[in-house]
Order: sequence, then structure tokens, then C-alpha cells
Amino acid sequence: MDENRLQKQIQFIVEIDKLKKITRQTSLMDRSRKENDAEHSWHLSVMAMLLSEHAKEDHIDVFRVLQMLLIHDLVEIDAGDTFCYDEAGNAGKLDREIKAADRIFNLLPADQAHYFRKLWDEFETRESPEARFAAALDRLQPLLHNSRTQGGTWREHHISRHQVIQRNSPINNSAPALWEYAAKLIVEAFEKGFLGE
Amino acid sequence: MDENRLQKQIQFIVEIDKLKKITRQTSLMDRSRKENDAEHSWHLSVMAMLLSEHAKEDHIDVFRVLQMLLIHDLVEIDAGDTFCYDEAGNAGKLDREIKAADRIFNLLPADQAHYFRKLWDEFETRESPEARFAAALDRLQPLLHNSRTQGGTWREHHISRHQVIQRNSPINNSAPALWEYAAKLIVEAFEKGFLGE
Repeated sequence: MDENRLQKQIQFIVEIDKLKKITRQTSLMDRSRKENDAEHSWHLSVMAMLLSEHAKEDHIDVFRVLQMLLIHDLVEIDAGDTFCYDEAGNAGKLDREIKAADRIFNLLPADQAHYFRKLWDEFETRESPEARFAAALDRLQPLLHNSRTQGGTWREHHISRHQVIQRNSPINNSAPALWEYAAKLIVEAFEKGFLGE
Repeated sequence: MDENRLQKQIQFIVEIDKLKKITRQTSLMDRSRKENDAEHSWHLSVMAMLLSEHAKEDHIDVFRVLQMLLIHDLVEIDAGDTFCYDEAGNAGKLDREIKAADRIFNLLPADQAHYFRKLWDEFETRESPEARFAAALDRLQPLLHNSRTQGGTWREHHISRHQVIQRNSPINNSAPALWEYAAKLIVEAFEKGFLGE
């Protein structure tokens, strides 16, 4: 065994513990607190195991989807979580995240740093069916949480139905059945007054 | 699409949000609070992506390892987390967990309930190289946390070096290089007084 190689891997494993401290906007289903990025990444991963049959493309590589989902938010250790409806925050987001990716993935041995970075780039650029499916789940999960928590962050930030449709309709490109389901939840939330016009 | 099928999948996804509320003994690396099962499952999964090269067997199916790790603690939604050094608590653990598995996995459509249950059984019985590797990581991660938090739960519960060796030496059956590393951490922790005799 290359001892230095294992040291680097362990250093990375210790570093990414910080993802458990990156708080997202989404509340837990019981509304007791906001969830964090580590919990979110886990939740999405189990969703991928269950829902890949709804992907439009026939041969989704679920292993690849899982790997992308497990690491997709690591850059937020440095860059922080940016609320998807925060236009100002999203302006500098990509720059912050690229800088973070450069630092964090390079803690790993070179081959693994390269592998993780490629996975992250693939997710960010939506360049494969797997990346598009992973991104669809990344939208569906908070939508599900908001729908189950009386509007959750939608209500908190006075988000409109139009904004939610615009944000989530790309689910349709990857998984029409999931978008059909999500669209119903949006209509329901609007009818209950959880979403503005 | 079978609407009832998707409904069941969503019901399961909502139910497992509760894993984020199941607190473990292990502290975060910054000692600010205990971690929960969802965070732990995520952390182990990234470790599997990185460390499979250290598995003794040549052809570990990492996809299978990930799937096992992502769902291995779901039963604790009903059964609770049992501290590994709590002998009384561990006496009734298996019964509690089997009852929990019966309820939780059966929220899913029958084929997926069966698939998830088989994965969980495989993990619990350590019947494959993948299950043994997943179990090795499930031991290594808290050891790493305790080692990095001045003894953490070892110190809190007056755990001895002997107990920690007994608990963690099965890592050696799956990944000798990781056990070699872990054993060094145990010696170090003992020398620093974080572990009793």
C-alpha cells in the first residue's frame, strides 16, 4: 500500500465532514429544522435507486447517477449553499464553486481528484442522461419537501407559482412521469395558497 | 406510468426523511454535535467510492456496496441507533430491526421492497465481499471520528483499547490496509490517554 495515497484519501474524508454543517433552505418533513447538504445528498441517492425507472432514457447508469449525487454538493463546503431563487447570489455562484472544486478535489490523489472533478463537471453541465436525471432529482426533492411542509421555503420567500414552474420544468426533459407528478403538487400548493401568483 | 407505484415510492421517500432525526453516538469532526444516520450513510458512501481499492477481494462491486450503505440504517427509523458497546441494548437489537425492516421496506412496491430487503439482509449477514467491505467502512468511519475528536465517544463511555480492537479488527477480513491504518490510530489514541486499558 502507498501510505501517502491512503493519507490523502483520509484527509479528504475528514475534510468533507464539513458538508454536514452546510445548511440548505429546505426544511425537514417534520419542519423541525433545515436540512444540510450531507442529508440532502443521501436522500437524493436513495431516490435515484428507486426512481430511475421513470427516466426517459432507457439505459440510465444508476451507479454513475449515485456517484454524481454523492459528490455534487461538496463544493458548497467553500462556496456555501445558494438559494435557487436568489438571483444576486446565483450571479457569482459558478466562480465560487469552480474555485472550491479546485481546492477540495485536489486534496485527493491525482487520479481520484481527476475522477471526482469529471463527475462534478458532468453533473454541472448536464452533459449526459445520468447528469440530467441526477439534476431532475435535485429539483424534485426540495419540491417534495416544500409541498409537504405547507409551502416551506416557497412561502418563507414569497415565491410564485411561475418561478417554481420555471425552476422545475426541466425535470420533464429527463423524467416526464416525475414532472407530471411534480406539476400536480405545484397546482395543489397554489390552490392551498402556499404559492403566490 | 402506474400512478399507484409512484405514490408508494414517494410515500417511502417521505418516510425515510426520518433518518435525518436518528442521532448516533459519533460526534462531527468539529465536535459541535452528534451526527445522524442520514449524514453517516452519505459519508460511508463517499468513503466506498474512494477506498474500494483497499479491499482484499479484487472485484468489489462498488455499486452494490453503495446501495447497501445507503439503506443499511433505515431500520433505525423504528429500531433506533444502538451504541455498539451497549451490551443490553444489543441483546434485542436484531428483533427490533427485523420488525422495522418488515414495516419500512414494505411501504415500497413489492419488487422494490424485495430488492431493498435483500440488500439489507446481505449487509446484515455479511454474506458477500461487498457486504463485508461495507461493514468494514461502517466500523472505520466512527473510529476515524473518535480518533479525530480526542477520543470522542470512547472517552465519554470509558471504552477500553481491548473493546475497540475487538469491535474493529473484522476490518482486517475485508481490507487489511485499512485495518493496519486503523490499528495505528488505536495505538495513538491509547498513548494519548483517549482509550482506557
